Amino acid sequence: MGQDVKSDIEIAQASSMVKVKELVSDLRLKEDEWEPYGHYKAKLSLSVMDRLKDEPDGKVILVTAINPTPAGEGKSTVTVGLGQALNKINKKTMIALREPSLGPTMGIKGGAAGGGYSQVVPMEDINLHFTGDIHAITTAHNALAAMLDNHVHRGNELNIDVRRVVWKRVLDMNDRALRQVVVGLGGPLQGVPRESGFDITVASEIMAILCLATSLKDLKERLAKIVVAYTEKDEPVTAKDLKAEGALTLLLKDAMKPNLVQTLENTPALIHGGPFANIAHGCNSVIATKMASKLGDYVVTEAGFGADLGAEKFLDIKTRAGDIDPSLVVIVATIRALKMHGGVPKDNLKEENVEALKKGLANLKKHVETIRSFGLPHVVAINRFIHDTDTEIDTLKSWCEEQGINVELADVWAKGGEGGIALAERVVKEIDEGEKNFTHMYELNTSIEEKVESIAKKVYGAKGVEFSPQARKQMKIYEDNGWGKYPVCMAKTQYSLSDDPKKLGRPEDFVISVRELKPSVGAGFIVALTGNVMTMPGLPKEPAAVKMDVDESGKALGLF
Amino acid sequence: MGQDVKSDIEIAQASSMVKVKELVSDLRLKEDEWEPYGHYKAKLSLSVMDRLKDEPDGKVILVTAINPTPAGEGKSTVTVGLGQALNKINKKTMIALREPSLGPTMGIKGGAAGGGYSQVVPMEDINLHFTGDIHAITTAHNALAAMLDNHVHRGNELNIDVRRVVWKRVLDMNDRALRQVVVGLGGPLQGVPRESGFDITVASEIMAILCLATSLKDLKERLAKIVVAYTEKDEPVTAKDLKAEGALTLLLKDAMKPNLVQTLENTPALIHGGPFANIAHGCNSVIATKMASKLGDYVVTEAGFGADLGAEKFLDIKTRAGDIDPSLVVIVATIRALKMHGGVPKDNLKEENVEALKKGLANLKKHVETIRSFGLPHVVAINRFIHDTDTEIDTLKSWCEEQGINVELADVWAKGGEGGIALAERVVKEIDEGEKNFTHMYELNTSIEEKVESIAKKVYGAKGVEFSPQARKQMKIYEDNGWGKYPVCMAKTQYSLSDDPKKLGRPEDFVISVRELKPSVGAGFIVALTGNVMTMPGLPKEPAAVKMDVDESGKALGLF
Repeated sequence: MGQDVKSDIEIAQASSMVKVKELVSDLRLKEDEWEPYGHYKAKLSLSVMDRLKDEPDGKVILVTAINPTPAGEGKSTVTVGLGQALNKINKKTMIALREPSLGPTMGIKGGAAGGGYSQVVPMEDINLHFTGDIHAITTAHNALAAMLDNHVHRGNELNIDVRRVVWKRVLDMNDRALRQVVVGLGGPLQGVPRESGFDITVASEIMAILCLATSLKDLKERLAKIVVAYTEKDEPVTAKDLKAEGALTLLLKDAMKPNLVQTLENTPALIHGGPFANIAHGCNSVIATKMASKLGDYVVTEAGFGADLGAEKFLDIKTRAGDIDPSLVVIVATIRALKMHGGVPKDNLKEENVEALKKGLANLKKHVETIRSFGLPHVVAINRFIHDTDTEIDTLKSWCEEQGINVELADVWAKGGEGGIALAERVVKEIDEGEKNFTHMYELNTSIEEKVESIAKKVYGAKGVEFSPQARKQMKIYEDNGWGKYPVCMAKTQYSLSDDPKKLGRPEDFVISVRELKPSVGAGFIVALTGNVMTMPGLPKEPAAVKMDVDESGKALGLF
Repeated sequence: MGQDVKSDIEIAQASSMVKVKELVSDLRLKEDEWEPYGHYKAKLSLSVMDRLKDEPDGKVILVTAINPTPAGEGKSTVTVGLGQALNKINKKTMIALREPSLGPTMGIKGGAAGGGYSQVVPMEDINLHFTGDIHAITTAHNALAAMLDNHVHRGNELNIDVRRVVWKRVLDMNDRALRQVVVGLGGPLQGVPRESGFDITVASEIMAILCLATSLKDLKERLAKIVVAYTEKDEPVTAKDLKAEGALTLLLKDAMKPNLVQTLENTPALIHGGPFANIAHGCNSVIATKMASKLGDYVVTEAGFGADLGAEKFLDIKTRAGDIDPSLVVIVATIRALKMHGGVPKDNLKEENVEALKKGLANLKKHVETIRSFGLPHVVAINRFIHDTDTEIDTLKSWCEEQGINVELADVWAKGGEGGIALAERVVKEIDEGEKNFTHMYELNTSIEEKVESIAKKVYGAKGVEFSPQARKQMKIYEDNGWGKYPVCMAKTQYSLSDDPKKLGRPEDFVISVRELKPSVGAGFIVALTGNVMTMPGLPKEPAAVKMDVDESGKALGLF
């Protein structure tokens, strides 16, 4: 990048935001349907859904990607840029994104609010406390933990086995020292000692629940079903057994309301919910996506990681929970990631390498096949990076055309909506003209084993699945507990189609190993773990926090 | 109480609030000086202080109390009621109160937003997440803890002794199982094992700092000075050594802005900051009190516990940090508390008992003497409770008049501002006519020992102070570290003038025992502990949370 390239925060702070009351007025919301949080953020009332329930739904466009490189492929940037571009061609469009977690912001450079000229703003607010949703989830999660330990301390009528407590505590912080702790030390007045730990808040089952609930009533019913522990006889103990679901719903009543902000080009965006993309489903909230589809003719939304993880979960879990009928999928690819899939090491990605690019296309091809097997129209978006050469881009475009794959270049980081007009026009055309026959990858009334096998074979291209003895035992218990009909949420590395992060491109002849399962009964899915999943990140040697500051007027410095 | 008496939440939910934009307009705030948080809360910019710096300050009225009973004496209710009453007699008045902590709300019935017809609203918001200030403090506190453990894990260049880490973590939750924990378990990738614990967020030194800081610059300087640990050679390690102060200030930039709400009678109230009243100073923020005194001709504010604790700290610590010149002190007394000081057991307080009342007056007398020795005009407010008899009230009034003590009845719980008009008129008269010669209880340039002795003898009426060998050693170290010139913050039971909660009335011939000291270098005071202070409460057998709920429209149920 040249010296005149501005940083994301410089671009964001120089933008001309319109006041949120103007956004709200453009969306024709009634006075009691929104509440301002500062002059540039608002929470929208769930009553909007009641008023508009008979209106037609807008077209939902899902943005996903090939298997990403460690730096990410700019899926949020394309999502924001495409939303801006659709508005530029006079399509009334809303964006629906995840809220970023504050913990990683303190640790490593980078947020989840897009980049360059395709960002959502006010970016400092969005990346810090925003409207407090994640803090509310932290509080609700830890209230349930405190009620559990208090119950055990005060007689333990439910016969909770302290060795079988599965409900940990959470903080929105990267804090490795809290991964494994012993609580309740200090003698009989300080509780009952036991092993436990902390996850980062976005990994809380309550985050997944909030993102899948369709109303406050549904939220409370899901919270009631959370399994917090087991008795010595392995009977599940739930939040309802602790009489906690009412208080938790109360603590979450405002967090359930979608947050309205805008892009740099004043396109309205709902930023709401952000569950982990591995042990949960990695999409923004159902309520935000549905509300966006009532307020806009088009909705652009995204899912975490690549199409093997995020899109599969969006299409098999989120669409079911929210009764969402997606219209089209955009698959983001970058030249650098394709070269990496073609064998180029991370440090050499800036050099032109057409051969590696061609080799890496196998990864893209698999994801396109997956979206086709979901029966959805799709467009590949090449997210332009500054080191991409014209030859590389032409190679990618020609290959797509040969394969009959719709493809468009997106230059939205550098040019905003203007750089996404061709993509927007293609997306609209494919929605209108493309063939659509949306189908899930598995039926709910098959066994857990069959569901995992469907995903592994049809989405990852595996030849089979190997279940550990523990996983087999768990599948039996879960089905006995009546949890067999839930969808499956796969926890797998995002870097490979297989469960081995080193196997790039399009691996073949591999087996997926399921080590362990985890029930998220409140969220309504069974997590299948193929490896160790880190649910509490740590800070790097020099955390991003040491560069952060604020001037005397309150302006954020060094955030990104 | 009769069957037609409404609960606090019923009264609050039935009130007619004006929109916060109207409050802001009445206060003549400029457009860029406030931000709405919903339609009934706003944050006020610190720039208000710059614009009004040359305007005269309003009169600051401090509300304190006799030593309370376990149920509290309604100091917040009198504060709100007096503010409402002053407005009724056409004195432009602002109220400045502490923000309640969410943790205890989950545990036991009761908030800190006044009661009856003298409440601040919207009470559900104020008692739940409010504008997120306490969550921001939780985050900043735990970010510092994570940076500390990360530093130790990644080479420990500062030579922090993990046995001498004094910075714990915090949650805004009543969670006894977190009082004593071991963190960093799980092997070399999960940090360095050590003993630690969690406090409730309002006990965080960062809460005390936020409440004493006069600007973002002052906030950052104070945060930098926080002592988090010691080296093996007992040299202090600070937040500045971890390069954390910029990020912490950034995390707190919005939390530093006072929150504007209103009373049931639409009197404007700033609710901001709420440090523990024992290990900290127990007053709302300096910035809110000062801003209120620029926006109103009168400010009614309160301090925690009785005059021996809260008022002494307000007058010796907060007035110094904020350069505040108080005009008058209201001392709240209740018939039931005076009877308890006169020997009546808690369960018999509803019965008339004039003899016990007379005996208990010794407690009130001591507090009046204390306020006199601070050189401030004062009025005793009898906070009327439903079981008080006319004979009892007459007894108390006559006694005050005999002693030359200003006294007025306040019936603000049942009647709102109307029930406080006599008190308001008396307060205005005493401010105009009373003799004022405000002086602190000790000079800063005396030793820690002399400061503690001044407070113990002059405020508590002790005959002396006994320091443990540990406390003596600590005083020496602190003075060597250059911390000797800070004011002292006493941690003592609130139920007695002595350090023995069972010694009610006006104990004599007692000695105060200082067991241990604790430096709060960022806050700028030395805590002197006279007993065990609980900094992480627990939940009762049936927590208040089990009765909480929310209906489908989002209305809070069972909150109080």
